[in-house]
Amino acid sequence: MVIILVQLKGFQKLTPVEEALQKFLKELQLRKPRAVVTPLGSALNRILAEDVVAKENLPRFDRSAVDGYAVKAEDTFEASQFKPKVLQITNKREIGERQAKQVWTGNPIPKGANAVLMLENTRRVNGKIEVWIPVAPGENICKEGEDVSKGEVAVKAGIRLKPQHLALMAALGIKEVKVFDKPKIALLATGNELVEIGVKPRENQIFEVNRLALSALCQELGAETLDLGIVKDNATEIAERIKFGIEKADMVITTGGTSVGVSDVVPMAVNSLGKPGVLVHGVAMRPAMPTALAVVNKKPVIILSGNPVAAMIAFEVFARPLICKMLGLKNVEARPKLKAKITRRTATVLGRKTFIRVRVFQQRNGEFFADPISTSGSGVITTMTKANGYVVAPENREGLEEGESVTVHLFDDVEVVDEDV
Amino acid sequence: MVIILVQLKGFQKLTPVEEALQKFLKELQLRKPRAVVTPLGSALNRILAEDVVAKENLPRFDRSAVDGYAVKAEDTFEASQFKPKVLQITNKREIGERQAKQVWTGNPIPKGANAVLMLENTRRVNGKIEVWIPVAPGENICKEGEDVSKGEVAVKAGIRLKPQHLALMAALGIKEVKVFDKPKIALLATGNELVEIGVKPRENQIFEVNRLALSALCQELGAETLDLGIVKDNATEIAERIKFGIEKADMVITTGGTSVGVSDVVPMAVNSLGKPGVLVHGVAMRPAMPTALAVVNKKPVIILSGNPVAAMIAFEVFARPLICKMLGLKNVEARPKLKAKITRRTATVLGRKTFIRVRVFQQRNGEFFADPISTSGSGVITTMTKANGYVVAPENREGLEEGESVTVHLFDDVEVVDEDV
Repeated sequence: MVIILVQLKGFQKLTPVEEALQKFLKELQLRKPRAVVTPLGSALNRILAEDVVAKENLPRFDRSAVDGYAVKAEDTFEASQFKPKVLQITNKREIGERQAKQVWTGNPIPKGANAVLMLENTRRVNGKIEVWIPVAPGENICKEGEDVSKGEVAVKAGIRLKPQHLALMAALGIKEVKVFDKPKIALLATGNELVEIGVKPRENQIFEVNRLALSALCQELGAETLDLGIVKDNATEIAERIKFGIEKADMVITTGGTSVGVSDVVPMAVNSLGKPGVLVHGVAMRPAMPTALAVVNKKPVIILSGNPVAAMIAFEVFARPLICKMLGLKNVEARPKLKAKITRRTATVLGRKTFIRVRVFQQRNGEFFADPISTSGSGVITTMTKANGYVVAPENREGLEEGESVTVHLFDDVEVVDEDV
Repeated sequence: MVIILVQLKGFQKLTPVEEALQKFLKELQLRKPRAVVTPLGSALNRILAEDVVAKENLPRFDRSAVDGYAVKAEDTFEASQFKPKVLQITNKREIGERQAKQVWTGNPIPKGANAVLMLENTRRVNGKIEVWIPVAPGENICKEGEDVSKGEVAVKAGIRLKPQHLALMAALGIKEVKVFDKPKIALLATGNELVEIGVKPRENQIFEVNRLALSALCQELGAETLDLGIVKDNATEIAERIKFGIEKADMVITTGGTSVGVSDVVPMAVNSLGKPGVLVHGVAMRPAMPTALAVVNKKPVIILSGNPVAAMIAFEVFARPLICKMLGLKNVEARPKLKAKITRRTATVLGRKTFIRVRVFQQRNGEFFADPISTSGSGVITTMTKANGYVVAPENREGLEEGESVTVHLFDDVEVVDEDV
């Protein structure tokens, strides 16, 4: 009876977004991913699996921070351009009193020296230098261990490695690092109407978009993907394919077949695969209301709408934070955010978290504006390509007012324009 | 004589950053990169080489935007929950008067229908439906061509392809796209003191950091790199290696050997390779003052300081915009920017553009602060790993005041903290 009611009336109950996500994460209890060793040169954008501790001081010796002359600071005291001190140039490893040795940035400080004079504050005359200003002891010297001292944590586990982290580890002589293994995400599209790109569609058929779009979103995060192909709206076939995905990958994402009633074939298929199965079906959000979240064999199965825009938005909300955890990131990576004024009144649905696609632009005066992309339905993919971000309107709002300050989550660049609002 | 003066006194003249960049770009006159064909599935983050025009309407037919029943709108007029209209369900391709056909989101609209009733506004009773609210003609229908109409430019040339662009092209049935070929950047490190990571350094030797750091910065932009290795401070060897790089790559970047005087070996080597050679040597910036910009055989040669921090900052200023152009991007990609309050007075050098590394954080109340990373020299690599962005202080400032609002260019994530300022 329940099924028939659902079939006729739509979702009986919609779960709020936050509650849905919490329920999902709680049931999953993800473990730390496996660590793998990789050469430093291949570690860009990977997630560091353990703290990197300096095995020696960086720098390993006192170095000159400038181009100039290593000296005994005392020999420069009271020097001026009118009454320069004169020092003898030496090439020895150790300098004596009233001696100077030429050094370039990064060169070791010779024994006996305790400061470096900058080139421009000296003049060289016949194997001697005139010193025009005094330097204090320690001046223009980069001290041993000043950058990182032996035993110190140089780079912390759980961060995504950027060029500057690689630079620091290289300077410490580190050749290989432990990073987390990439999670593998299996992608399945379902629907009788779908054909592969490149195939000539018959009347009423459409090209399958979602595996490509979701694969790109996974790649951006640094996850691997496994293509499970397209299957028809057949619960047995769908269940088989998802089972295969669960065996081979760390997570399965499906698209299509998650409406109410007879079209509810994917959640049914997932429930046939084992407990706890579908935890949430129907989320209080717009778009992507028919999203379902499931756990099978301790692995997450995210069941998305077949509509590409809804699929991408629900990926953002549910798959992205999960993949960040599976990557081993200490913190979920947020999209860059900025505050902007919304350019016109925008309708939202009371009781649903509404994801409004907007085009943010910056006026020459520096002010940011968010222009909502008008749409008659979430199926319009150009709402995503015309937008460079989205605004999340909370469940308790019935609309956003013109000129209201909103937080935009950016997924593409912001243009500076000479545009009137 | 000039050389000796330079040797003794440092740079005679520093070129302002903007002037240096303009001089460089003007001399280069870069051509449009070559276009290559790539499968859509490999096109993420590539730069689109030509406008993609829709060969047909998207959608190709009128589609339902919701789950429900396709109807003649006129048959629903004046319907209410108290006085429902009753329609006969049909499965035919065409609906007649007072008929309805069940449709799911994305299904084609059957002939004869001009609107779709949402499931939740109906009740199914014995092969008929009760209609509880009226719909207007066109309601809940996604019209043929509404997303993109035939002949329209769907995605513009010169942009970096994101998941949403791939989705749109997939929906249009596009299997392959023309993208710009990746530029190849050759990287050479110079310096007697340098050893490869993995080699045990002798006293006074240091690990070579720059090729790895610059390679990562190139990779982030989507450029390829060619490793020219490490060479000693020998003008002949350096010239040979750079010549090889110019032949095999689109640009050469070197590090080290660009101080004044005897240490000026790389600019000398470059000048031996042909005209115009070095255009700028010595830039009014901090760090990275010894940067030199050269053109040989119409190809750019960027000569960076051996100091990793200076090298990375000068890469940001000079190499990054150039690589964006070589990638075929319509607009130079800027780092995400935000306004923050600087937490303490920060010294800068009058007459130099100063790049201050800062750690930006956001307080729970939403306010952003930029904490300058203190440093005794630009050689301290942890100034880059502790920072997540940089502030550019203009040439005409002698310092930034505590609490001043500054623009931060972000190169890493921003944390939200419960931190007192």
